[in-house]
Amino acid sequence: MNQQYSSALLERAVDEFAKLPGIGRKSAMRLVLHMLRLDVDKVDGFSNSISTLRHNVNYCRVCHNISDEEVCQICSNPNRNAAQICVVENIQDVMAIEHTQQYRGLYHVLGGVISPMDGVGPGELQISSLVDRVSAGGIDEVILALSSTMEGDTTNFFIFRKLAPFPEVKLSILARGLSINDELQYTDEVTLGRSLVNRVPFTGK
Amino acid sequence: MNQQYSSALLERAVDEFAKLPGIGRKSAMRLVLHMLRLDVDKVDGFSNSISTLRHNVNYCRVCHNISDEEVCQICSNPNRNAAQICVVENIQDVMAIEHTQQYRGLYHVLGGVISPMDGVGPGELQISSLVDRVSAGGIDEVILALSSTMEGDTTNFFIFRKLAPFPEVKLSILARGLSINDELQYTDEVTLGRSLVNRVPFTGK
Repeated sequence: MNQQYSSALLERAVDEFAKLPGIGRKSAMRLVLHMLRLDVDKVDGFSNSISTLRHNVNYCRVCHNISDEEVCQICSNPNRNAAQICVVENIQDVMAIEHTQQYRGLYHVLGGVISPMDGVGPGELQISSLVDRVSAGGIDEVILALSSTMEGDTTNFFIFRKLAPFPEVKLSILARGLSINDELQYTDEVTLGRSLVNRVPFTGK
Repeated sequence: MNQQYSSALLERAVDEFAKLPGIGRKSAMRLVLHMLRLDVDKVDGFSNSISTLRHNVNYCRVCHNISDEEVCQICSNPNRNAAQICVVENIQDVMAIEHTQQYRGLYHVLGGVISPMDGVGPGELQISSLVDRVSAGGIDEVILALSSTMEGDTTNFFIFRKLAPFPEVKLSILARGLSINDELQYTDEVTLGRSLVNRVPFTGK
């Protein structure tokens, strides 16, 4: 037993917390000591929620978003526009876009972006199922909403080529330019340059 | 169900993580998504370690440090000086002092400091059991190793009065002064003032 901890149970719990991303041993200890101050049923509620999620997690068979049913709430919602597919990297991106309340179409969660450096090729992503959804028909527009990084751009271009056989489907990409409240002098030169090249008519509205 | 999350199981797990101190909803989501990428047995290992600790946690009946046995490894170690008791606030402080490798006596974990603002009075702390240990005899020195805050000072003074009936027991307190590597100009004036008043002979060693 490690004398530093005086309890093997404590040490094991700290070890487990310290494995989580962004949590060091000091934070892990703080969290474990917090757990020790809680009622037993609260601690069991915490640990059950994690295990239950992992055991019963399910992904929508249409868009691959996390879902408790076979088809997620968004895909099965008749009030959403099933002719629009917004392609995102992960489920946090779905939440971020939902949070804007500016989109009423469906999603397609790729599960990542093409990144040879990290060993992620197109085969690891849900790209062929996207092509299947488009080739099944009824799709007007595919919106590429990936990060504006090199990996995102690579993935955009890969999907662009995969969807070339469907010229009737409009392919669009998120606008890139100054962020709202950006000060011009502090904007990076690539963003500023592209904003200038891609300037849009100003209608005074 | 909250549409933001698209899965009640996911939402519950995020809620549970977000209850932990210092973890907001975004971090909670990041941690839960990390859990989803792990193998089932790793996730079960995590959640079991927390529940097992909470169900089976035990505190040393002598010093109140966390311990898997009735008496902790430190109290039951015959190589440690049982005539010295170092009084600390919590088990992290035990670890911090153990880490210095400068102390070979025993500990006494109070479980906090007197703080009327937080509703912590002397009765909530392990002070009477400290007095019992001292009155049982065989103690040469009690070292007060509490934080140098108002609450720590109040607690020090309370213990000082409680141990007044045992004048044969030396009562000491951690040295206070400049931290190692402190630059004088950036040291707060209270610390600097006390360091000056409590200056010690310099032997050139």
